[in-house]
Amino acid sequence: MSSRLSLNQKTVDSLDLPDAVDACVEAGLALIGLWRESVARHGVAESAEMVAKAGLRISSLCRGGFFPAATEVRFEENVADNLAAIDEAAALGTDVLVLVCGGVANDDLEGSRRQVGEGIARIVPHAADKGIKLAIEPLHPMFTADRSVVVTMDQALDMAELHPPDRVGVVVDTYHIWWDPDIWAQIERAGERILAFQVCDWLDPLPDLLMGRGMMGDGVIEFRRFTEAVNEAGYEGPIEVEIFNQAIWERDAGEVIAEMIERYEELIVA
Amino acid sequence: MSSRLSLNQKTVDSLDLPDAVDACVEAGLALIGLWRESVARHGVAESAEMVAKAGLRISSLCRGGFFPAATEVRFEENVADNLAAIDEAAALGTDVLVLVCGGVANDDLEGSRRQVGEGIARIVPHAADKGIKLAIEPLHPMFTADRSVVVTMDQALDMAELHPPDRVGVVVDTYHIWWDPDIWAQIERAGERILAFQVCDWLDPLPDLLMGRGMMGDGVIEFRRFTEAVNEAGYEGPIEVEIFNQAIWERDAGEVIAEMIERYEELIVA
Repeated sequence: MSSRLSLNQKTVDSLDLPDAVDACVEAGLALIGLWRESVARHGVAESAEMVAKAGLRISSLCRGGFFPAATEVRFEENVADNLAAIDEAAALGTDVLVLVCGGVANDDLEGSRRQVGEGIARIVPHAADKGIKLAIEPLHPMFTADRSVVVTMDQALDMAELHPPDRVGVVVDTYHIWWDPDIWAQIERAGERILAFQVCDWLDPLPDLLMGRGMMGDGVIEFRRFTEAVNEAGYEGPIEVEIFNQAIWERDAGEVIAEMIERYEELIVA
Repeated sequence: MSSRLSLNQKTVDSLDLPDAVDACVEAGLALIGLWRESVARHGVAESAEMVAKAGLRISSLCRGGFFPAATEVRFEENVADNLAAIDEAAALGTDVLVLVCGGVANDDLEGSRRQVGEGIARIVPHAADKGIKLAIEPLHPMFTADRSVVVTMDQALDMAELHPPDRVGVVVDTYHIWWDPDIWAQIERAGERILAFQVCDWLDPLPDLLMGRGMMGDGVIEFRRFTEAVNEAGYEGPIEVEIFNQAIWERDAGEVIAEMIERYEELIVA
């Protein structure tokens, strides 16, 4: 099995962190992607120890971001929360913090986009101090209002390129960007700024905006082309499977992981 | 009331065509946007007569398109259906046929995009003969798989610009494009190729991908900026309100139209 495959714990959302760690070990995986809420339930130090003891590495921590705010006070709170997320990522021993940048505040799309730029600029120095890379994740445009005003790779790279390449980069997530007519040029442009590669499929019909992501192979995305594109761009890091899907969450987690490995070998790296 | 306001009949989906026409007249509207399925129930000639007798003009006919096909035979059927749609538009006395270009066929996104280009090229001569302009509608990227592989204004214009400006243009629909960081530059680029301007709002949270469009003012879109942008680009044509929303469809159609006029005057043209 490829040493690049990482289980994002959201794919097995029914499992608490210790169980997700055990499931990775049982399945022979070397990498896991974590979420802050899950880590918080056990404490950062305890979570770090749990993962290390199991012999796993953490491919990324989700998520910082959510910068746009209706008031200055709230914006400062958001910045502070991101500084805390950087500390958590460092304590966990990962070097990638994923930024889901936040939706529209005050019905002001452009103002919200400016706030994202300001927020990132505010946290870059602390991220540099802690050795953490900030990975801007362009989300699918259907999440513009509520989750991310950053919606294309082009836009994410415009933002990242204001900072050094070893500090701010992007997440390539197939679910969010597969539709983009310009994506191949943008992945090539991203180059060394690709900090994470996440995969899951787009189901047709889509069961749900948020909880309707599909196992690779169950939808319409041509994965091999994405793998080739990020490889050609120079990315050699983890390939994280992150699936938000109620039906998958209700299945036996071991079965889901086995299927994930099978599909990964068949569709992603073959 | 602005003479530019047009009621797309989908906004009052519970009304059959004669009732929608009557409702327009009662509300003092001069323009109506029609759908082929609705026209087909009454016959093209009868529908044209009904609208003309009421003193209304047809702002556009929805919809041609849906070109991508799994087989050559099906592709030819799709082309033939578009030729029929052009005939219907001409018989109805409108000069704009809206193209919803169709989703992914054969799990092949790029191939489907090529089929759209080929399909449009196939029908342009007949459209020219009949005096019909083809309006490519970039749909929201969340419809890539099932409804339109054309998902940005940039992409739609790249396709349109292969043909004369008086034959192939684009639809600017706020619901589909409001998220696009590049939209202002693209609307300026579109210029005389803007053949239709459709408005409805993006609700947060979104009740449903297809049936969750909102009345202007109920969501997050900044309409005035779009009106100014299309006006500055030189567009002087109809402004169509097209709302797919189950909750709105269940309300009294007269009330919906009254609210539409009020919101239009408050948010779109003021």
